[in-house]
Amino acid sequence: MKTIKGGITAPEGFLASGIHSGIKKSAKKDLMLIYSKVPANAAGVFTSNKVKAAPIILSQKNIVSGKAQVIIANSGCANACTGEKGITDARQMVYAISSVLHVPFENILVASTGPIGKLLPMRNIMAGVRILSNSMSKGGGEDAAAAILTTDTRKKEIAVQMTINKKTVKIGGIAKGSGMIHPNMDLPHATMFGFITTDADIPGNMLKSMLKKAVDRSFNSITVDRDTSTNDCVFLLANGMSKCGKLNKKGEEEFYGALIYVCQYLAKEIARDGEGATKLIEVRVEGAKSDEEATEVGRSVAGSDLVKSAMFGCDPNFGRIMAAVGNSKAEVVPDLVDLFIGEYRIMHKCEVVAFNVNALRKYLKKKDIVITVKLGLGKGSATAWGCDLTYDYVKINAEYST
Amino acid sequence: MKTIKGGITAPEGFLASGIHSGIKKSAKKDLMLIYSKVPANAAGVFTSNKVKAAPIILSQKNIVSGKAQVIIANSGCANACTGEKGITDARQMVYAISSVLHVPFENILVASTGPIGKLLPMRNIMAGVRILSNSMSKGGGEDAAAAILTTDTRKKEIAVQMTINKKTVKIGGIAKGSGMIHPNMDLPHATMFGFITTDADIPGNMLKSMLKKAVDRSFNSITVDRDTSTNDCVFLLANGMSKCGKLNKKGEEEFYGALIYVCQYLAKEIARDGEGATKLIEVRVEGAKSDEEATEVGRSVAGSDLVKSAMFGCDPNFGRIMAAVGNSKAEVVPDLVDLFIGEYRIMHKCEVVAFNVNALRKYLKKKDIVITVKLGLGKGSATAWGCDLTYDYVKINAEYST
Repeated sequence: MKTIKGGITAPEGFLASGIHSGIKKSAKKDLMLIYSKVPANAAGVFTSNKVKAAPIILSQKNIVSGKAQVIIANSGCANACTGEKGITDARQMVYAISSVLHVPFENILVASTGPIGKLLPMRNIMAGVRILSNSMSKGGGEDAAAAILTTDTRKKEIAVQMTINKKTVKIGGIAKGSGMIHPNMDLPHATMFGFITTDADIPGNMLKSMLKKAVDRSFNSITVDRDTSTNDCVFLLANGMSKCGKLNKKGEEEFYGALIYVCQYLAKEIARDGEGATKLIEVRVEGAKSDEEATEVGRSVAGSDLVKSAMFGCDPNFGRIMAAVGNSKAEVVPDLVDLFIGEYRIMHKCEVVAFNVNALRKYLKKKDIVITVKLGLGKGSATAWGCDLTYDYVKINAEYST
Repeated sequence: MKTIKGGITAPEGFLASGIHSGIKKSAKKDLMLIYSKVPANAAGVFTSNKVKAAPIILSQKNIVSGKAQVIIANSGCANACTGEKGITDARQMVYAISSVLHVPFENILVASTGPIGKLLPMRNIMAGVRILSNSMSKGGGEDAAAAILTTDTRKKEIAVQMTINKKTVKIGGIAKGSGMIHPNMDLPHATMFGFITTDADIPGNMLKSMLKKAVDRSFNSITVDRDTSTNDCVFLLANGMSKCGKLNKKGEEEFYGALIYVCQYLAKEIARDGEGATKLIEVRVEGAKSDEEATEVGRSVAGSDLVKSAMFGCDPNFGRIMAAVGNSKAEVVPDLVDLFIGEYRIMHKCEVVAFNVNALRKYLKKKDIVITVKLGLGKGSATAWGCDLTYDYVKINAEYST
């Protein structure tokens, strides 16, 4: 497997476009389209927030068909808490792209992100849909990646290729994140989007189970602010145009490895670009009762405002890390816990050991911090990612206009 | 019932003292004592964090006797994650006060707050114990209230009196909070302390059940940063010295009402004085399936960093409130939800209604903000309290030295 250029449109048969339609007041892009030349097998995972945006409700229905050919998404308005009108608007957005591209309604997935409680400006959307479909191209992936951003400071895209059954198989992906990031998508949450395309030939059921597993180990393992959005979703479209045919066991493993790589890359990019963030915090948990419990501990540490503030201040406040470990829902026997920051062992069996404070302080000035927690209970392990809590997080969210 | 002066030492037979023993580098008070002239019936609730500080482990053992005559507590060091040595130190602290005051070991409760992972400076403690016991007095409540503070900006104390069986009965209380505040005391969590005294005559079992109920509706209903401490505890001592005798049904209700008042006053003071806070945010939840579920929703809203940042910015970002409602573990049917900020109805059945944005922005500039969520599902109700998320929270916690 190697990384290549091209992002979401790198795989065979995928086109994309992204434009400024006027949803955002600024001149930034706010509407995008991803199109597969042939209907693709599709899987999706959605926010577990009980308050779900209209586009989420609609996409959850459409994904049932197991097929998708189009993803349409906007930034600048979440179309959440918008009642019946919101549902009608989401449907109209899908109808519009359906009639322009001659793709069945149920083969279209829709997603929105931005402020909650506002109606979509349907005039802009309707006009935008026409421009989007006229401008879609093999080189449009970057525009699509730009058009889903909200408070993100940069685009998040990646593509990889591998050889399966002697054919070149590609996976491309784009994502957005930044605030309200604590994905817990059932089948994932944050407002985060992850759109992934591949030209591999993968049956619907396998696609679903692979996506669910990959999301649990990537998007569902990050947190920026422990707030789960009303609009999160990850879509995976596999159109088979690589002509690689059915995957054997080895091919399946190779593809899944590449999918995990793509999802983790995008998830870490979201954490690193969390609102106001200056650092990526990686929390590795070993020795948990199960992988799920390891994830619980990892997210509890990565999500603690006190740990996050300490990391911003380059302060080796390991006591807060221990408190966060003890707060997780996972089984923890404090007397068994070992704690490392970077390569420095800080605690052994829940007692502080001698460590070089100055070296540690220097380490904490880095952009990528690794915290390792060894629970000493079992074989469960997981990695979670988060970011530091900074003045800019407060600034962005105190001034984010409703 | 009326509020009176005197704080923790207002009830008959209670003395207190508070001194600077040298645990803190500053000249601020850091060690305190509360003493009852006679052994009192005692109840306690403790953090549910799996990582428990040494003094918590010890006080959980001693409370089993159902009797207490002394509370000794320090700030400036949490004595948490200190292993066997920590347990030995906590025991030695109790032994010292036991021998000076001739009070049995098991009738002494101990609590510590401050940075985690450091050993208590036992020389200072041992010298301090002697000074504490020599200086305890009827007027010492205020010193005791000062000696438990960490990043708190002010003392938190209250006293009330009522007439029961024709006798004057008093309740006094002190508390500390500020950071790592998300109490969830089993029988409560944050590092928060709540020490409460009364001269009422209340049997052990009734005291326990009253304290548990009162804590659920007060300390366990606040959050500053969703981080539950290793050291939280609330103690309630009832020494019977009012000579009011056994409470009848009416007396019991009156006493419980006063206890709730004291606990809620102290809990709100903790929320209002949360690290860096400029406002108190009160979240009233009605129409939940149960009171417990109402508390879940209230704390989810009061605890959301996005809601808290918006409140700091006086930004009526109701979408974040709705997202936080949907994130709680409670049953929520979005289409039934009504939302009010102050007296302004913002949403009806999960749709935005017309409201006066300018008036609302003006309201949000107040120091006390009330958010009301009506779930429309059942008869469960609860109130939760929190504070805004500010630059100063980040500053305090980025620079808090380990």
